[in-house]
Amino acid sequence: MPGYPELDHTNDPAARSWVGTANDGINDFPVQNLPLGIFSAAGLPPRAGMAIGASVLDLVAASDLGLLGDAVPRELLAKAGLNDLFAAGHGAGLRLRHAAFALLEASDTMGAQAHAGAILHDMETVTMHRPVHVGNYTDFYAGIHHAVRAGGLLQPENPLPDNYKWVPIGYHGRASTTRVSGTDVRRPAGQFQPAPGAAPEFGPCRELDLELEMAVYVGRPTEWGRPLGIAEAAEHVAGYGLLNDWSARDIQRWEMKPLGPFLSKNLGTSLSPWVLSPQALAPFRVAMAPRDPADPQPLPYLMSAEDQAKGTFDVALSVQIRTGRMRAAGDAPVTIIRSNMRDLYWTPQQLLAHHTCSGCEMEAGDLIGTGTISGPREDELGSLLELTMNGARPVRLPNGETRSFLADGDEITLKGRCTREGFVPIGFGTCTGTVLPAPVAAAPRTLAGSPA
Amino acid sequence: MPGYPELDHTNDPAARSWVGTANDGINDFPVQNLPLGIFSAAGLPPRAGMAIGASVLDLVAASDLGLLGDAVPRELLAKAGLNDLFAAGHGAGLRLRHAAFALLEASDTMGAQAHAGAILHDMETVTMHRPVHVGNYTDFYAGIHHAVRAGGLLQPENPLPDNYKWVPIGYHGRASTTRVSGTDVRRPAGQFQPAPGAAPEFGPCRELDLELEMAVYVGRPTEWGRPLGIAEAAEHVAGYGLLNDWSARDIQRWEMKPLGPFLSKNLGTSLSPWVLSPQALAPFRVAMAPRDPADPQPLPYLMSAEDQAKGTFDVALSVQIRTGRMRAAGDAPVTIIRSNMRDLYWTPQQLLAHHTCSGCEMEAGDLIGTGTISGPREDELGSLLELTMNGARPVRLPNGETRSFLADGDEITLKGRCTREGFVPIGFGTCTGTVLPAPVAAAPRTLAGSPA
Repeated sequence: MPGYPELDHTNDPAARSWVGTANDGINDFPVQNLPLGIFSAAGLPPRAGMAIGASVLDLVAASDLGLLGDAVPRELLAKAGLNDLFAAGHGAGLRLRHAAFALLEASDTMGAQAHAGAILHDMETVTMHRPVHVGNYTDFYAGIHHAVRAGGLLQPENPLPDNYKWVPIGYHGRASTTRVSGTDVRRPAGQFQPAPGAAPEFGPCRELDLELEMAVYVGRPTEWGRPLGIAEAAEHVAGYGLLNDWSARDIQRWEMKPLGPFLSKNLGTSLSPWVLSPQALAPFRVAMAPRDPADPQPLPYLMSAEDQAKGTFDVALSVQIRTGRMRAAGDAPVTIIRSNMRDLYWTPQQLLAHHTCSGCEMEAGDLIGTGTISGPREDELGSLLELTMNGARPVRLPNGETRSFLADGDEITLKGRCTREGFVPIGFGTCTGTVLPAPVAAAPRTLAGSPA
Repeated sequence: MPGYPELDHTNDPAARSWVGTANDGINDFPVQNLPLGIFSAAGLPPRAGMAIGASVLDLVAASDLGLLGDAVPRELLAKAGLNDLFAAGHGAGLRLRHAAFALLEASDTMGAQAHAGAILHDMETVTMHRPVHVGNYTDFYAGIHHAVRAGGLLQPENPLPDNYKWVPIGYHGRASTTRVSGTDVRRPAGQFQPAPGAAPEFGPCRELDLELEMAVYVGRPTEWGRPLGIAEAAEHVAGYGLLNDWSARDIQRWEMKPLGPFLSKNLGTSLSPWVLSPQALAPFRVAMAPRDPADPQPLPYLMSAEDQAKGTFDVALSVQIRTGRMRAAGDAPVTIIRSNMRDLYWTPQQLLAHHTCSGCEMEAGDLIGTGTISGPREDELGSLLELTMNGARPVRLPNGETRSFLADGDEITLKGRCTREGFVPIGFGTCTGTVLPAPVAAAPRTLAGSPA
């Protein structure tokens, strides 16, 4: 299967679904999208589903009714994670998409609508789960506009490190604390310096931040000791989602030298529940912006003409906030951040080729974060660190509240949407989380030591 | 169960086993040790075993014969990883140890020796596997003597960072590339600077190193958002092993700013197959060395009088090398490094309390590396980086070969052994790996890009 799929009939803007809510041009999930996720509903264990309009298509139920033909084995759909389905590669994903498209398309040649009660659930009534079991999580730093701005604030002596334009910088993240959208995230405690040069204190984080990122999911696994060529990499990407890399800036500043961020990033990582496929995103592929002539060209193992021509996507991203006070007053969320995936410095394929050049083994369903995505403009800032100049320039919300960093009760929502003239817009759904207060201090005995 | 167990009858130096090889005083696995591992043998799928002398006790077979009583449910023993057994906590581990001790002890009151053919395998004939499924891997930097020396070589401007004596520095490692001892490790390719300030090149690593570490395995899991008190932490440690954190120094130096080591550490991490329990190690508990009066005391969340008094172990560690030429000539391995776990700056309990203070969730079987363990003396250096002064002072081997860093074909073996007057010595077995050449360059099309 080609790693950069051509448009096919499932991208046809004329297509409509017999699921009416999919056809309004506003909903994120028209029949051209068909993202995969894991859901459970009353009486049903977690399983694979597909978003269609305001509904979720139960792929196991559809398979049991023979409505998916032999697109993929039923057992790949009946698991609590998409890992094994992703492992089956682009071919399997595309067969499933084609089968679901035939099932949901308005002409209903399969007579599926007669089974709507058995195969569709109202999206509001289901529980969404992490789309994959996250075996490994890597977070990159591919947003150059973020790197320049955040680097300047966190490490003013060297905002953009010497290696930045040569090597896709990344680090390993914590898999166990990845969570699906809708899960509240607890403010961490940790060490931080109350003032530069001062002895550290231990207590609740005072500078809790969000980071607007894209999630890239690995499909077909790679072999240990066998690097992926850049031209092969796209075939190993199963799909894309949204990721909020919650960050404790005060803890991060103190802990990160010399081995990088640790506790400041493992308090929780929020994932949107729906994974959009390369085929769904095909109309929105764009070329990488030409590099500044003063910048080095990518080294050969990261360079492919095809990848430079269509290796990334035009995804309009945004972040909304709704504070506890806004929620109590019934106020709608307010958008505080806008950005776009096309402003990354490296393509997902470059990230993957780099990740494996050491021989590192990628497993199906592995999670890769792009790093925070900011844009070149002053209003395209993917974190509060940048937006508020490290707290020096608080954001004023319409109800008069201000935010330097996040307060307990703040609800943060990431969105992503693709639009292009002549095509039906598709979206990523939402990636939401609300900040809970720091944990109650451990009981005194645990501080004083002893009893056991 | 107490997290710091008192000595019991299984630590009795007078005890002997009916398995003769366990009683020679030299073997790592006398009846006082009884470490757990995962093995497979002809016709048997992977399962839990216990090392006894030169044999492996098949715990599933012993359970099926009723020789373990109701110590632990059989299904915890029949899995391909020790995770679920570890999750059951110290109580389950201790019941299993007591049952196995009764089974193997010389008086053989259970009549187990009559079943030796069914329950014992020659260690030479079995295949050992990773002891756990590694869901999450964290590597710390708790060896202060290593931090000072390596820091001085990698980052001379700031060898020991300001935060070192306050915060147990750690970073997330790559779980997918952890491997059991005996697995060969491939030299990675990557970017490095051929000279300071020069543009980077891409190619096989030229400065491949080993790192001598201890592995700490998490037992009972923790809850997300619920930090462990320092006094609770020991109850969450299932056991200990050896860990070789293979490191590509040239790649590391170039990639690690600002987010820490990445590809330079994910080429492979070798684990010894046997996990020693807190009870087996009880005789070898020692106090932490008093801190230099000029050093800060641990912050309250890391401070417990009990932990300071018995939070670490006296484990004599060593590293042996056998080059390809030595192997061809039939030469024995040569010891190039000696060190001791007691020289760490933080106890395993402090590492765990720190790790969870952010609310980070620990899963049963999670792997924690201590960081490279060097000692205060000039001959106690836990890596080649230190031993050869970053290659400037090559090691001369008895056959005349020299090593600045590792060459293809070099076999590296870590060992650990506990001795104390009045007790039977126990050991960790070995953690071995041989360096394979870098991967053959990817086919030209993958460099030039295109076809797919």
